[in-house]
Amino acid sequence: MNRLYHVPLSPFCRKVRLTLAEKKIEVELVEERYWEPSPDFLRRNPAGKVPILKMGTRTMSESQAICEYLEEISPQVPLMPKDADGRYEVRRLCAWFDDKFQNEVTSKLLYERVNKKVTGQGYPDSKNVKQGSARIKYHLDYMAWLLDQRRWLAGNEMTLADFTAAAHLSCLDYISDVDWHRHAVLKDWYAKIKSRPSFRPLLADQISGFPPAAHYADLDF
Amino acid sequence: MNRLYHVPLSPFCRKVRLTLAEKKIEVELVEERYWEPSPDFLRRNPAGKVPILKMGTRTMSESQAICEYLEEISPQVPLMPKDADGRYEVRRLCAWFDDKFQNEVTSKLLYERVNKKVTGQGYPDSKNVKQGSARIKYHLDYMAWLLDQRRWLAGNEMTLADFTAAAHLSCLDYISDVDWHRHAVLKDWYAKIKSRPSFRPLLADQISGFPPAAHYADLDF
Repeated sequence: MNRLYHVPLSPFCRKVRLTLAEKKIEVELVEERYWEPSPDFLRRNPAGKVPILKMGTRTMSESQAICEYLEEISPQVPLMPKDADGRYEVRRLCAWFDDKFQNEVTSKLLYERVNKKVTGQGYPDSKNVKQGSARIKYHLDYMAWLLDQRRWLAGNEMTLADFTAAAHLSCLDYISDVDWHRHAVLKDWYAKIKSRPSFRPLLADQISGFPPAAHYADLDF
Repeated sequence: MNRLYHVPLSPFCRKVRLTLAEKKIEVELVEERYWEPSPDFLRRNPAGKVPILKMGTRTMSESQAICEYLEEISPQVPLMPKDADGRYEVRRLCAWFDDKFQNEVTSKLLYERVNKKVTGQGYPDSKNVKQGSARIKYHLDYMAWLLDQRRWLAGNEMTLADFTAAAHLSCLDYISDVDWHRHAVLKDWYAKIKSRPSFRPLLADQISGFPPAAHYADLDF
Protein backbone atom coordinates (compact mmCIF):
# COMPACT_ATOMS: atom_id res chain seq x y z
CA MET A 1 0.00 0.00 0.00
CA ASN A 2 1.26 3.48 -0.85
CA ARG A 3 1.67 5.75 2.13
CA LEU A 4 1.82 9.55 2.37
CA TYR A 5 3.37 11.13 5.45
CA HIS A 6 1.76 14.54 5.74
CA VAL A 7 0.25 17.28 7.87
CA PRO A 8 -3.32 18.33 7.02
CA LEU A 9 -2.81 22.09 6.67
CA SER A 10 0.33 21.98 4.52
CA PRO A 11 -0.13 23.29 0.96
CA PHE A 12 2.73 21.06 -0.21
CA CYS A 13 1.07 17.94 1.23
CA ARG A 14 -2.30 18.98 -0.15
CA LYS A 15 -0.85 19.41 -3.62
CA VAL A 16 0.36 15.80 -3.54
CA ARG A 17 -2.92 14.55 -2.03
CA LEU A 18 -4.89 16.26 -4.82
CA THR A 19 -2.60 14.88 -7.53
CA LEU A 20 -2.84 11.35 -6.13
CA ALA A 21 -6.64 11.61 -5.91
CA GLU A 22 -7.02 13.04 -9.43
CA LYS A 23 -5.00 10.11 -10.71
CA LYS A 24 -6.99 7.66 -8.55
CA ILE A 25 -3.81 6.37 -6.88
CA GLU A 26 -4.82 4.98 -3.48
CA VAL A 27 -2.71 5.99 -0.54
CA GLU A 28 -2.79 5.63 3.22
CA LEU A 29 -2.38 8.97 5.00
CA VAL A 30 -0.10 9.12 8.04
CA GLU A 31 0.03 12.36 9.99
CA GLU A 32 3.63 13.29 10.73
CA ARG A 33 4.66 15.50 13.61
CA TYR A 34 7.48 16.96 11.49
CA TRP A 35 8.43 19.46 14.21
CA GLU A 36 9.42 16.56 16.49
CA PRO A 37 11.54 14.69 13.94
CA SER A 38 12.17 11.12 15.06
CA PRO A 39 15.19 9.12 13.84
CA ASP A 40 12.62 7.07 11.91
CA PHE A 41 11.29 10.17 10.17
CA LEU A 42 14.74 11.49 9.30
CA ARG A 43 15.65 8.09 7.87
CA ARG A 44 12.57 8.33 5.66
CA ASN A 45 13.58 11.80 4.51
CA PRO A 46 16.98 13.46 5.01
CA ALA A 47 15.42 16.84 4.12
CA GLY A 48 13.31 16.56 7.30
CA LYS A 49 10.14 17.83 5.62
CA VAL A 50 6.70 16.61 4.64
CA PRO A 51 5.23 15.39 2.34
CA ILE A 52 6.98 12.06 1.96
CA LEU A 53 5.45 9.51 -0.37
CA LYS A 54 6.27 5.83 -0.06
CA MET A 55 5.43 3.86 -3.20
CA GLY A 56 6.74 0.29 -3.20
CA THR A 57 10.43 0.53 -2.32
CA ARG A 58 10.67 4.24 -3.24
CA THR A 59 10.63 7.00 -0.63
CA MET A 60 10.05 10.36 -2.27
CA SER A 61 10.22 13.96 -1.10
CA GLU A 62 9.78 17.41 -2.69
CA SER A 63 6.17 17.99 -3.71
CA GLN A 64 6.79 19.32 -7.24
CA ALA A 65 9.17 16.45 -8.09
CA ILE A 66 6.62 13.96 -6.71
CA CYS A 67 3.75 15.46 -8.73
CA GLU A 68 5.80 15.49 -11.95
CA TYR A 69 6.66 11.84 -11.27
CA LEU A 70 3.00 10.93 -10.73
CA GLU A 71 2.15 12.74 -13.97
CA GLU A 72 4.76 10.71 -15.86
CA ILE A 73 3.80 7.29 -14.49
CA SER A 74 0.06 8.00 -14.62
CA PRO A 75 -0.70 10.33 -17.54
CA GLN A 76 -4.34 9.22 -18.03
CA VAL A 77 -5.81 12.19 -16.15
CA PRO A 78 -3.35 14.74 -17.54
CA LEU A 79 -2.35 17.61 -15.26
CA MET A 80 0.30 18.93 -17.67
CA PRO A 81 -0.21 20.13 -21.26
CA LYS A 82 1.50 18.26 -24.10
CA ASP A 83 3.43 21.24 -25.54
CA ALA A 84 6.62 22.76 -24.13
CA ASP A 85 5.14 26.28 -23.95
CA GLY A 86 2.16 25.06 -21.97
CA ARG A 87 4.32 22.96 -19.64
CA TYR A 88 6.60 25.94 -19.02
CA GLU A 89 3.61 28.03 -17.96
CA VAL A 90 2.38 25.33 -15.55
CA ARG A 91 5.84 25.03 -13.97
CA ARG A 92 6.25 28.79 -13.75
CA LEU A 93 2.96 29.10 -11.87
CA CYS A 94 3.71 26.14 -9.59
CA ALA A 95 6.96 27.91 -8.63
CA TRP A 96 5.05 31.19 -8.26
CA PHE A 97 2.75 29.67 -5.62
CA ASP A 98 5.22 27.33 -3.91
CA ASP A 99 7.92 29.99 -3.67
CA LYS A 100 6.63 33.56 -4.00
CA PHE A 101 3.09 33.05 -2.63
CA GLN A 102 4.45 30.72 0.08
CA ASN A 103 7.02 33.31 1.25
CA GLU A 104 4.79 36.36 0.98
CA VAL A 105 1.43 34.96 2.06
CA THR A 106 1.18 31.36 3.31
CA SER A 107 4.14 31.62 5.69
CA LYS A 108 2.93 35.01 6.95
CA LEU A 109 -0.65 33.95 7.67
CA LEU A 110 -0.94 30.19 8.11
CA TYR A 111 2.42 29.68 9.82
CA GLU A 112 1.88 32.60 12.15
CA ARG A 113 -1.70 31.75 13.06
CA VAL A 114 -1.58 27.93 13.13
CA ASN A 115 1.86 26.33 12.86
CA LYS A 116 3.38 28.48 15.59
CA LYS A 117 0.70 27.43 18.07
CA VAL A 118 0.68 23.77 17.03
CA THR A 119 4.47 23.51 17.33
CA GLY A 120 4.62 25.47 20.59
CA GLN A 121 6.43 28.51 19.21
CA GLY A 122 4.10 31.06 20.76
CA TYR A 123 1.84 33.77 19.38
CA PRO A 124 1.52 35.21 15.86
CA ASP A 125 3.80 38.11 14.99
CA SER A 126 1.30 40.83 14.04
CA LYS A 127 3.76 42.47 11.65
CA ASN A 128 3.93 39.27 9.60
CA VAL A 129 0.15 38.80 9.67
CA LYS A 130 -0.32 42.37 8.47
CA GLN A 131 2.17 41.88 5.64
CA GLY A 132 0.53 38.61 4.56
CA SER A 133 -2.95 40.16 4.63
CA ALA A 134 -1.72 42.99 2.41
CA ARG A 135 0.18 40.76 -0.03
CA ILE A 136 -2.61 38.23 -0.57
CA LYS A 137 -4.66 40.97 -2.28
CA TYR A 138 -1.96 41.46 -4.89
CA HIS A 139 -1.87 37.71 -5.55
CA LEU A 140 -5.66 37.37 -5.79
CA ASP A 141 -5.63 40.25 -8.29
CA TYR A 142 -2.93 38.51 -10.33
CA MET A 143 -4.95 35.26 -10.36
CA ALA A 144 -8.10 37.13 -11.43
CA TRP A 145 -6.10 38.82 -14.20
CA LEU A 146 -4.95 35.40 -15.46
CA LEU A 147 -8.50 33.99 -15.21
CA ASP A 148 -9.89 36.90 -17.21
CA GLN A 149 -7.86 35.61 -20.16
CA ARG A 150 -7.98 31.84 -19.58
CA ARG A 151 -10.42 29.21 -18.31
CA TRP A 152 -7.83 27.87 -15.86
CA LEU A 153 -4.72 29.47 -14.38
CA ALA A 154 -2.17 28.19 -16.89
CA GLY A 155 -4.41 28.00 -19.97
CA ASN A 156 -7.67 26.48 -21.13
CA GLU A 157 -7.12 23.12 -19.42
CA MET A 158 -7.05 22.36 -15.71
CA THR A 159 -3.46 21.62 -14.66
CA LEU A 160 -1.13 21.13 -11.73
CA ALA A 161 -0.91 24.94 -11.50
CA ASP A 162 -4.59 25.04 -10.44
CA PHE A 163 -4.09 22.36 -7.80
CA THR A 164 -0.94 24.06 -6.50
CA ALA A 165 -2.77 27.37 -6.13
CA ALA A 166 -5.84 25.67 -4.64
CA ALA A 167 -3.65 23.81 -2.15
CA HIS A 168 -2.39 27.14 -0.79
CA LEU A 169 -5.73 28.93 -0.91
CA SER A 170 -7.61 26.04 0.73
CA CYS A 171 -5.24 26.17 3.74
CA LEU A 172 -5.79 29.92 4.02
CA ASP A 173 -9.54 29.48 3.54
CA TYR A 174 -9.59 27.09 6.51
CA ILE A 175 -8.56 30.06 8.69
CA SER A 176 -10.82 32.53 6.81
CA ASP A 177 -7.97 34.46 5.19
CA VAL A 178 -9.27 34.56 1.61
CA ASP A 179 -11.66 37.32 0.53
CA TRP A 180 -13.83 35.53 -2.04
CA HIS A 181 -15.81 38.73 -2.70
CA ARG A 182 -12.79 40.40 -4.27
CA HIS A 183 -13.15 38.82 -7.75
CA ALA A 184 -16.14 36.83 -9.04
CA VAL A 185 -13.94 35.05 -11.59
CA LEU A 186 -11.68 33.77 -8.81
CA LYS A 187 -14.59 32.54 -6.70
CA ASP A 188 -15.98 30.69 -9.74
CA TRP A 189 -12.60 29.06 -10.33
CA TYR A 190 -12.36 27.93 -6.70
CA ALA A 191 -15.96 26.65 -6.71
CA LYS A 192 -15.13 24.46 -9.72
CA ILE A 193 -12.00 23.01 -8.16
CA LYS A 194 -13.58 22.68 -4.70
CA SER A 195 -16.42 20.55 -6.07
CA ARG A 196 -14.08 17.92 -7.51
CA PRO A 197 -14.11 14.53 -5.76
CA SER A 198 -10.34 14.87 -5.18
CA PHE A 199 -11.04 17.87 -2.93
CA ARG A 200 -13.48 16.13 -0.59
CA PRO A 201 -10.93 14.67 1.86
CA LEU A 202 -9.32 18.11 2.25
CA LEU A 203 -12.67 19.62 3.15
CA ALA A 204 -13.09 17.01 5.89
CA ASP A 205 -9.76 17.92 7.56
CA GLN A 206 -10.04 19.07 11.17
CA ILE A 207 -7.12 20.50 13.15
CA SER A 208 -7.40 20.08 16.90
CA GLY A 209 -7.85 23.49 18.52
CA PHE A 210 -8.53 25.17 15.16
CA PRO A 211 -12.08 24.61 13.91
CA PRO A 212 -12.39 25.53 10.21
CA ALA A 213 -14.21 28.66 9.03
CA ALA A 214 -17.98 28.07 8.76
CA HIS A 215 -17.95 28.25 4.94
CA TYR A 216 -14.78 26.14 4.56
CA ALA A 217 -16.43 22.86 3.50
CA ASP A 218 -19.44 24.52 1.90
CA LEU A 219 -19.55 24.07 -1.89
CA ASP A 220 -21.90 27.06 -2.10
CA PHE A 221 -19.67 29.47 -0.14
CA MET B 1 18.68 37.58 -30.37
CA ASN B 2 17.84 35.81 -27.11
CA ARG B 3 18.57 37.87 -24.05
CA LEU B 4 19.14 36.85 -20.42
CA TYR B 5 18.67 39.43 -17.69
CA HIS B 6 20.87 38.29 -14.82
CA VAL B 7 23.29 39.08 -12.03
CA PRO B 8 26.68 37.34 -12.16
CA LEU B 9 26.76 35.83 -8.66
CA SER B 10 23.21 34.43 -8.63
CA PRO B 11 23.03 30.61 -8.56
CA PHE B 12 19.64 30.74 -10.29
CA CYS B 13 21.02 32.85 -13.14
CA ARG B 14 24.10 30.64 -13.40
CA LYS B 15 21.95 27.54 -13.65
CA VAL B 16 20.19 29.03 -16.69
CA ARG B 17 23.48 30.28 -18.20
CA LEU B 18 24.98 26.79 -17.89
CA THR B 19 21.92 25.13 -19.40
CA LEU B 20 21.88 27.57 -22.34
CA ALA B 21 25.61 27.03 -22.94
CA GLU B 22 25.37 23.23 -22.72
CA LYS B 23 22.63 23.37 -25.33
CA LYS B 24 24.61 25.84 -27.45
CA ILE B 25 21.77 28.38 -27.41
CA GLU B 26 23.30 31.81 -27.92
CA VAL B 27 22.16 34.56 -25.64
CA GLU B 28 23.07 38.16 -24.92
CA LEU B 29 23.67 38.76 -21.20
CA VAL B 30 22.25 41.92 -19.63
CA GLU B 31 23.15 42.66 -16.04
CA GLU B 32 20.05 43.65 -14.08
CA ARG B 33 20.14 45.76 -10.94
CA TYR B 34 17.19 43.78 -9.53
CA TRP B 35 17.38 45.62 -6.20
CA GLU B 36 16.46 48.86 -7.99
CA PRO B 37 13.51 47.51 -9.96
CA SER B 38 12.57 49.85 -12.77
CA PRO B 39 9.06 49.91 -14.28
CA ASP B 40 10.70 48.39 -17.34
CA PHE B 41 12.07 45.48 -15.31
CA LEU B 42 8.79 44.85 -13.52
CA ARG B 43 7.00 44.82 -16.86
CA ARG B 44 9.46 42.17 -18.02
CA ASN B 45 8.79 40.11 -14.90
CA PRO B 46 5.96 40.59 -12.40
CA ALA B 47 7.81 38.37 -9.90
CA GLY B 48 10.55 41.04 -9.74
CA LYS B 49 13.39 38.51 -9.82
CA VAL B 50 16.25 37.42 -12.06
CA PRO B 51 16.88 35.43 -14.20
CA ILE B 52 14.55 36.51 -16.98
CA LEU B 53 15.01 34.94 -20.38
CA LYS B 54 13.67 36.61 -23.51
CA MET B 55 13.37 34.22 -26.45
CA GLY B 56 11.51 35.63 -29.44
CA THR B 57 8.24 37.00 -28.08
CA ARG B 58 8.42 34.94 -24.86
CA THR B 59 9.56 36.43 -21.56
CA MET B 60 10.30 33.68 -19.06
CA SER B 61 11.03 33.60 -15.35
CA GLU B 62 11.68 30.89 -12.71
CA SER B 63 14.98 29.13 -13.32
CA GLN B 64 13.76 25.53 -12.97
CA ALA B 65 10.79 26.11 -15.30
CA ILE B 66 13.14 27.78 -17.82
CA CYS B 67 15.66 24.92 -17.70
CA GLU B 68 12.94 22.28 -18.13
CA TYR B 69 11.64 24.27 -21.11
CA LEU B 70 15.12 24.45 -22.67
CA GLU B 71 15.48 20.70 -22.13
CA GLU B 72 12.19 20.07 -23.94
CA ILE B 73 12.84 22.30 -26.94
CA SER B 74 16.49 21.31 -27.21
CA PRO B 75 16.91 17.70 -26.08
CA GLN B 76 20.08 17.00 -28.12
CA VAL B 77 22.46 17.49 -25.18
CA PRO B 78 20.22 15.76 -22.62
CA LEU B 79 20.31 17.09 -19.07
CA MET B 80 17.43 14.88 -17.93
CA PRO B 81 17.26 11.06 -17.98
CA LYS B 82 14.63 9.33 -20.12
CA ASP B 83 12.96 7.35 -17.33
CA ALA B 84 10.49 8.69 -14.74
CA ASP B 85 12.55 7.43 -11.78
CA GLY B 86 15.68 9.18 -13.05
CA ARG B 87 13.80 12.38 -13.80
CA TYR B 88 12.28 12.36 -10.32
CA GLU B 89 15.75 12.12 -8.77
CA VAL B 90 17.04 15.05 -10.88
CA ARG B 91 14.06 17.20 -9.88
CA ARG B 92 14.36 16.22 -6.22
CA LEU B 93 18.00 17.30 -6.18
CA CYS B 94 17.33 20.54 -8.08
CA ALA B 95 14.75 21.39 -5.39
CA TRP B 96 17.23 20.32 -2.68
CA PHE B 97 19.80 22.87 -3.88
CA ASP B 98 17.45 25.66 -4.96
CA ASP B 99 15.38 25.45 -1.78
CA LYS B 100 17.16 23.74 1.13
CA PHE B 101 20.78 24.56 0.20
CA GLN B 102 19.72 28.08 -0.83
CA ASN B 103 17.99 28.75 2.50
CA GLU B 104 20.57 27.09 4.74
CA VAL B 105 23.80 27.99 2.96
CA THR B 106 23.72 30.31 -0.08
CA SER B 107 21.51 32.93 1.56
CA LYS B 108 23.55 32.75 4.77
CA LEU B 109 26.97 33.16 3.14
CA LEU B 110 26.70 34.79 -0.28
CA TYR B 111 23.81 37.11 0.55
CA GLU B 112 25.39 38.20 3.81
CA ARG B 113 28.88 38.71 2.42
CA VAL B 114 28.13 40.08 -1.07
CA ASN B 115 24.50 40.96 -1.81
CA LYS B 116 24.06 43.04 1.35
CA LYS B 117 27.04 45.22 0.46
CA VAL B 118 26.18 45.48 -3.24
CA THR B 119 22.59 46.49 -2.48
CA GLY B 120 23.57 48.90 0.31
CA GLN B 121 22.02 46.88 3.16
CA GLY B 122 25.07 47.08 5.41
CA TYR B 123 27.35 44.50 6.98
CA PRO B 124 27.06 40.71 7.21
CA ASP B 125 25.19 39.31 10.20
CA SER B 126 27.82 37.10 11.85
CA LYS B 127 25.16 34.76 13.25
CA ASN B 128 23.96 33.95 9.74
CA VAL B 129 27.51 33.54 8.41
CA LYS B 130 28.29 31.14 11.25
CA GLN B 131 25.14 29.11 10.56
CA GLY B 132 25.89 28.93 6.83
CA SER B 133 29.49 27.86 7.46
CA ALA B 134 28.27 25.08 9.74
CA ARG B 135 25.49 23.87 7.41
CA ILE B 136 27.60 23.75 4.24
CA LYS B 137 29.63 20.91 5.79
CA TYR B 138 26.51 18.79 6.12
CA HIS B 139 25.62 19.45 2.49
CA LEU B 140 29.12 18.68 1.20
CA ASP B 141 29.00 15.40 3.15
CA TYR B 142 25.63 14.57 1.59
CA MET B 143 26.99 15.29 -1.91
CA ALA B 144 30.07 13.12 -1.24
CA TRP B 145 27.78 10.34 -0.01
CA LEU B 146 25.80 10.50 -3.26
CA LEU B 147 29.01 10.59 -5.35
CA ASP B 148 30.36 7.52 -3.56
CA GLN B 149 27.50 5.58 -5.13
CA ARG B 150 27.10 7.35 -8.47
CA ARG B 151 29.27 9.01 -11.12
CA TRP B 152 27.16 12.17 -11.03
CA LEU B 153 24.82 13.54 -8.38
CA ALA B 154 21.56 12.08 -9.69
CA GLY B 155 22.93 8.92 -11.30
CA ASN B 156 25.51 7.78 -13.82
CA GLU B 157 24.82 10.58 -16.30
CA MET B 158 25.51 14.29 -15.92
CA THR B 159 22.19 16.12 -15.44
CA LEU B 160 20.59 19.40 -14.49
CA ALA B 161 21.08 18.38 -10.83
CA ASP B 162 24.87 18.70 -11.31
CA PHE B 163 24.56 22.13 -12.91
CA THR B 164 22.15 23.29 -10.20
CA ALA B 165 24.57 22.22 -7.47
CA ALA B 166 27.57 23.64 -9.34
CA ALA B 167 25.74 26.95 -9.82
CA HIS B 168 25.42 27.31 -6.04
CA LEU B 169 28.91 26.02 -5.21
CA SER B 170 30.60 28.20 -7.85
CA CYS B 171 29.09 31.34 -6.30
CA LEU B 172 30.33 30.26 -2.87
CA ASP B 173 33.71 29.31 -4.31
CA TYR B 174 34.05 32.85 -5.67
CA ILE B 175 34.09 34.06 -2.06
CA SER B 176 36.22 31.10 -0.85
CA ASP B 177 33.46 29.44 1.15
CA VAL B 178 33.87 25.87 -0.11
CA ASP B 179 36.37 23.53 1.57
CA TRP B 180 37.51 21.39 -1.35
CA HIS B 181 39.79 19.36 0.92
CA ARG B 182 36.82 17.86 2.75
CA HIS B 183 36.07 15.10 0.19
CA ALA B 184 38.28 14.06 -2.75
CA VAL B 185 35.26 12.67 -4.61
CA LEU B 186 33.54 16.05 -4.45
CA LYS B 187 36.61 17.92 -5.66
CA ASP B 188 36.90 15.50 -8.60
CA TRP B 189 33.24 16.08 -9.46
CA TYR B 190 33.69 19.86 -9.41
CA ALA B 191 36.91 19.65 -11.45
CA LYS B 192 35.02 17.75 -14.16
CA ILE B 193 32.16 20.21 -14.30
CA LYS B 194 34.44 23.25 -13.98
CA SER B 195 36.44 22.21 -17.04
CA ARG B 196 33.41 22.15 -19.33
CA PRO B 197 33.28 24.90 -21.98
CA SER B 198 29.86 25.98 -20.59
CA PHE B 199 31.59 26.93 -17.33
CA ARG B 200 34.20 29.29 -18.84
CA PRO B 201 32.08 32.48 -18.87
CA LEU B 202 31.24 31.97 -15.18
CA LEU B 203 34.92 31.71 -14.31
CA ALA B 204 35.52 35.06 -16.04
CA ASP B 205 32.90 36.88 -13.93
CA GLN B 206 34.21 39.80 -11.88
CA ILE B 207 32.15 41.65 -9.27
CA SER B 208 33.25 45.22 -8.65
CA GLY B 209 34.65 45.49 -5.11
CA PHE B 210 34.77 41.69 -4.69
CA PRO B 211 37.75 40.10 -6.44
CA PRO B 212 37.34 36.32 -6.73
CA ALA B 213 39.34 33.87 -4.60
CA ALA B 214 42.78 33.17 -6.14
CA HIS B 215 41.86 29.59 -7.09
CA TYR B 216 38.39 30.48 -8.38
CA ALA B 217 39.15 30.30 -12.12
CA ASP B 218 41.93 27.74 -11.76
CA LEU B 219 41.04 24.37 -13.30
CA ASP B 220 43.75 22.77 -11.15
CA PHE B 221 42.52 24.14 -7.82
